[in-house]
Amino acid sequence: MTTPDTKTTEDKYIGVLTSGGDASGMNAAIRAVTRSAIFNGFKVKGIYRGYEGLITGEIKELTTETVSNIIQRGGTILKTARSQAFMTPEGRKKAYETMQKEHIVALIVIGGDGSLTGARIFAEEYNVVCIGLPGTIDNDLYGTDYTIGYDTALNTIVECVDKIRDTATSHDRIFFVEVMGRDAGYLAQNSAIASGAEAAIIPEDRTDADQLEQFISRGFRKTKNSSIVIVSESPKDGGAMHYADRVKKEYPQYDVRVSILGHLQRGGSPSAYDRILASRLGTGAIEALLEGQRNVLIGIRNNQVVYIPFAEAIKDDKPFDKSLIKVLNELSI
Amino acid sequence: MTTPDTKTTEDKYIGVLTSGGDASGMNAAIRAVTRSAIFNGFKVKGIYRGYEGLITGEIKELTTETVSNIIQRGGTILKTARSQAFMTPEGRKKAYETMQKEHIVALIVIGGDGSLTGARIFAEEYNVVCIGLPGTIDNDLYGTDYTIGYDTALNTIVECVDKIRDTATSHDRIFFVEVMGRDAGYLAQNSAIASGAEAAIIPEDRTDADQLEQFISRGFRKTKNSSIVIVSESPKDGGAMHYADRVKKEYPQYDVRVSILGHLQRGGSPSAYDRILASRLGTGAIEALLEGQRNVLIGIRNNQVVYIPFAEAIKDDKPFDKSLIKVLNELSI
Amino acid sequence: MTTPDTKTTEDKYIGVLTSGGDASGMNAAIRAVTRSAIFNGFKVKGIYRGYEGLITGEIKELTTETVSNIIQRGGTILKTARSQAFMTPEGRKKAYETMQKEHIVALIVIGGDGSLTGARIFAEEYNVVCIGLPGTIDNDLYGTDYTIGYDTALNTIVECVDKIRDTATSHDRIFFVEVMGRDAGYLAQNSAIASGAEAAIIPEDRTDADQLEQFISRGFRKTKNSSIVIVSESPKDGGAMHYADRVKKEYPQYDVRVSILGHLQRGGSPSAYDRILASRLGTGAIEALLEGQRNVLIGIRNNQVVYIPFAEAIKDDKPFDKSLIKVLNELSI
Amino acid sequence: MTTPDTKTTEDKYIGVLTSGGDASGMNAAIRAVTRSAIFNGFKVKGIYRGYEGLITGEIKELTTETVSNIIQRGGTILKTARSQAFMTPEGRKKAYETMQKEHIVALIVIGGDGSLTGARIFAEEYNVVCIGLPGTIDNDLYGTDYTIGYDTALNTIVECVDKIRDTATSHDRIFFVEVMGRDAGYLAQNSAIASGAEAAIIPEDRTDADQLEQFISRGFRKTKNSSIVIVSESPKDGGAMHYADRVKKEYPQYDVRVSILGHLQRGGSPSAYDRILASRLGTGAIEALLEGQRNVLIGIRNNQVVYIPFAEAIKDDKPFDKSLIKVLNELSI
Repeated sequence: MTTPDTKTTEDKYIGVLTSGGDASGMNAAIRAVTRSAIFNGFKVKGIYRGYEGLITGEIKELTTETVSNIIQRGGTILKTARSQAFMTPEGRKKAYETMQKEHIVALIVIGGDGSLTGARIFAEEYNVVCIGLPGTIDNDLYGTDYTIGYDTALNTIVECVDKIRDTATSHDRIFFVEVMGRDAGYLAQNSAIASGAEAAIIPEDRTDADQLEQFISRGFRKTKNSSIVIVSESPKDGGAMHYADRVKKEYPQYDVRVSILGHLQRGGSPSAYDRILASRLGTGAIEALLEGQRNVLIGIRNNQVVYIPFAEAIKDDKPFDKSLIKVLNELSI
Repeated sequence: MTTPDTKTTEDKYIGVLTSGGDASGMNAAIRAVTRSAIFNGFKVKGIYRGYEGLITGEIKELTTETVSNIIQRGGTILKTARSQAFMTPEGRKKAYETMQKEHIVALIVIGGDGSLTGARIFAEEYNVVCIGLPGTIDNDLYGTDYTIGYDTALNTIVECVDKIRDTATSHDRIFFVEVMGRDAGYLAQNSAIASGAEAAIIPEDRTDADQLEQFISRGFRKTKNSSIVIVSESPKDGGAMHYADRVKKEYPQYDVRVSILGHLQRGGSPSAYDRILASRLGTGAIEALLEGQRNVLIGIRNNQVVYIPFAEAIKDDKPFDKSLIKVLNELSI
Repeated sequence: MTTPDTKTTEDKYIGVLTSGGDASGMNAAIRAVTRSAIFNGFKVKGIYRGYEGLITGEIKELTTETVSNIIQRGGTILKTARSQAFMTPEGRKKAYETMQKEHIVALIVIGGDGSLTGARIFAEEYNVVCIGLPGTIDNDLYGTDYTIGYDTALNTIVECVDKIRDTATSHDRIFFVEVMGRDAGYLAQNSAIASGAEAAIIPEDRTDADQLEQFISRGFRKTKNSSIVIVSESPKDGGAMHYADRVKKEYPQYDVRVSILGHLQRGGSPSAYDRILASRLGTGAIEALLEGQRNVLIGIRNNQVVYIPFAEAIKDDKPFDKSLIKVLNELSI
Repeated sequence: MTTPDTKTTEDKYIGVLTSGGDASGMNAAIRAVTRSAIFNGFKVKGIYRGYEGLITGEIKELTTETVSNIIQRGGTILKTARSQAFMTPEGRKKAYETMQKEHIVALIVIGGDGSLTGARIFAEEYNVVCIGLPGTIDNDLYGTDYTIGYDTALNTIVECVDKIRDTATSHDRIFFVEVMGRDAGYLAQNSAIASGAEAAIIPEDRTDADQLEQFISRGFRKTKNSSIVIVSESPKDGGAMHYADRVKKEYPQYDVRVSILGHLQRGGSPSAYDRILASRLGTGAIEALLEGQRNVLIGIRNNQVVYIPFAEAIKDDKPFDKSLIKVLNELSI
């Protein structure tokens, strides 16, 4: 993309879309992208339902006013979807044709690793300018310390567990609380520390040992009458229900309950941090475009905005800070 | 109970316990009972784990200070339980002996209909003075407009559905959200109105017609791309999962999800209303004792504290205000 | 108004406006009025900035969709104002002409006593059909147990005082917290009970005695190291600052602070109760129109929707339940 | 400190205190210090009211149980104060004697720069082992990216401004909202970004230009009918009231209001981030002791726990990230 052209020709637009699972703060990111783009002389088009809208042409111009009063709202005003069609060459061809027709010269994709993988393939195939923003509650993108939506989801989980603990304590119960995160244990491990849970069962630690055995062998309920165990969702082992069943079988004397927090973890008004992160990364995306960057994820590292090449961002295994496991172990005595 | 005796003799106590499922505001009620009792010259003993503690003698004196700074806390500092033993004559005999031994001349029971039924039987068998306070999120006690914990649970549900709606709207989904309430649809019907849900499926209306059919035949999603249906938990029909499955089968084109809110509905800091209600009913319980009342539930009707004989309070079917069904129908167009 | 005409002629509209200070739940009321009206065959026009919009003709049609997704939002999408012009005969003449021109056959006014007084005069002068909905955080309207916005404001105050108490306790301080309510002490008295405050200073009790003296003479801080006193705003005596200054002067050994909660008491997502109340009263307004009612306030009494003639609703002194003073006195020991 | 001695001799204790203004998350830090210490073989004594308690000997042993169920509570169970006596040599002498008498071999101070300055002087004078934890909502300590309490205060401010914006929008008003932060603009600048405010007036930018003039000359209210301006408290220029008065004078056509958030910014249940930060830094403090560190502040940098020598941490001017000013400028168009 040659910026001067973009700025001088009136009918060139930046396109923005949200893709994959919704995350709180996506609206703040849309607002930031839109306003920062307009501030820097661009025009902006909003693409609806992720890549689907790019294929079907569901697109509307965004102005300063259309993004007013959305910074505090969960979900995404552009709606989101997981597009099957975009995984096919035909779908991407149509998407490219829409971009041409709509005079969209750069595409800003707000989403998780599936969405960025799509952007990467698309950018390579058609030589289009793509910029990614990390929008996912899972915080599983490589190269950025945080993703938009993670802090809000973490706070929502902690508020829920605070409530569940009232019941656990009043009734002397053990609760297995299942939280989201897909293959990443960030939400589970950190919400366990923040809510004063006795243990977390996370994917990153599964190869090491039987975490439930550890929890039990450490003598859970020795000094306590109630316990909270946070379990990261996982299709492999059956999640919270599986662990609850094991304890019920082995320790029938305990009053064991399960709570699966589910979709309420995604929505809600974004936390201050997610709003600021989305605002910084959104303006960062436009700055990156102005600098001639392409096919990078805009991330945050050491509290600074950084650019991460797509190939690097969607690498499989974001390193997990094992010191957090030590923290939880020491504090759950 | 002859009040003068109670006031002049130092070693006569009022006992207070919480029983059954925990409800937010129980601590505010314990505080109110304790302080109002002390204000009026009584002493107070806290009985732990409901009737269990009365049987096993797990009892501690409560002072003005021990109930400081608890008005804002969920759960119950006295813990709660459903006592099997108290359902037996032997259990109640032990409970009575504990009361004698501990010089407890009147018993204040904070709980739902199971707990009040226990109090009623106990009061009749041993001629003890019992006063009930309505502590249940289900709002299913006859004779009182509201029960302690109901308003908090309602607000918690509405906050959760507000979050779920962000996701429902962003993804154009239908969510079936299951809420508590046992055999009473108060939480479901009112949370449906408050959260702007499209429908509520409640026990009170089940005999009348197939509520799901009504919802569908009214043309759900005619003008909307997403829908929320609140389903009252029910062992009979399988709850939210059951209705979601029906819709998935009949309307495979829709993206249907289920969220079961579960135990987080019970805890959390009580709402202003529940704190005020608990405070008024707690002082009302002591006033009732001073007036020589016994075996009554302290309730609220027309915003006035009232006394309801136990037999009346635990009658089966609290009348359901059908006008609320009309309100939801008109507003979900 | 003859309802049949209204229903059969296409170009007859119900007008709705919000007036006076904003209150949370006004949007829920606008939604309820609009949808219930449409459900019953009417069309609806939204009038902006209260009576100002009626005078200047700032009016837009409201549909089912325009009131979507607003039930959970504070403030009012119709905006609100205190109109000087409407207090003049010329202003009301223009307002009447607008109604004629816009084919508005009935006016629904959501507001407090100033707004209802305006409606009453207007209705008499021009023989127009007016229906009032009680929208004010002050809960000072006669004939209705609650007003829309009161419960939310109460919860907001209590959440704020919960936070302030953390600081008061940590530092052993006395806080005088000033809350809204104009000439009515509902917010102050009830938030004092709900937040476990040591005292409330309210207008209704001012004639009786010096409430600060009572508080002090009861031995504040005898058993406590920190205290919260809720003070109802009052132009007469200077509010929280005044009382804080008196204590500072008389008791220089205490660490006294003031917190004036201010405008944050008005906004925020409405509580479940306010949403339900607004929904019930909004549908009630349309039902009243259908029944041929006019110049009544739709209120709630004993949990039933009632109609209160304007003249009665804006009477000066809503009776204050003195039993609440007793409750606070007993519980702040 | 020679760790082996500490571990082998039973009567050696780690002392912990909170000092200065309270900050949410201090309890989580007390819990982390206590449990991590016990986990690693130490015993712990809690010192009340900051350095005052060290001087007067108000000290109690802390166990695993005494810090149960406090992670979610605002304020500090150890209470806090600003000690005049500790600023005198006599005060510090008494404090040292108390440490000897109580067998406290290391002191952990949770507080802001005043408290750390005290610790630094004390450590030098008496050669005692001090470790600092950054506990202040102002985020003004050098060497650590975040301080305990900052994220919670930021979220509280943003929630309040969300509410105020409802009123600002409904009434077309300009609000000047004053927030805490002493000489640091972190809270003001970041809350302005997060709440979608139109401008922030902060100490760090005061020397550069007249920020209010900039705001006005940018054409505030050109495209908007309401505005929020966040003003950092400042004894120098009079804060929000001062700026509101200037605008009222120069632009009498605008409806200008002021809201001073005050002490409610300090308390409340800590955010997830503050709980995690406090937990990590608390365990980090014990790890530092085990490593033989002394007179360092435990901080977080680049998401890693770091040790910062006292002298460095309390340096005057923590650098302010000017890119945040650019973000706000671009997004408030």
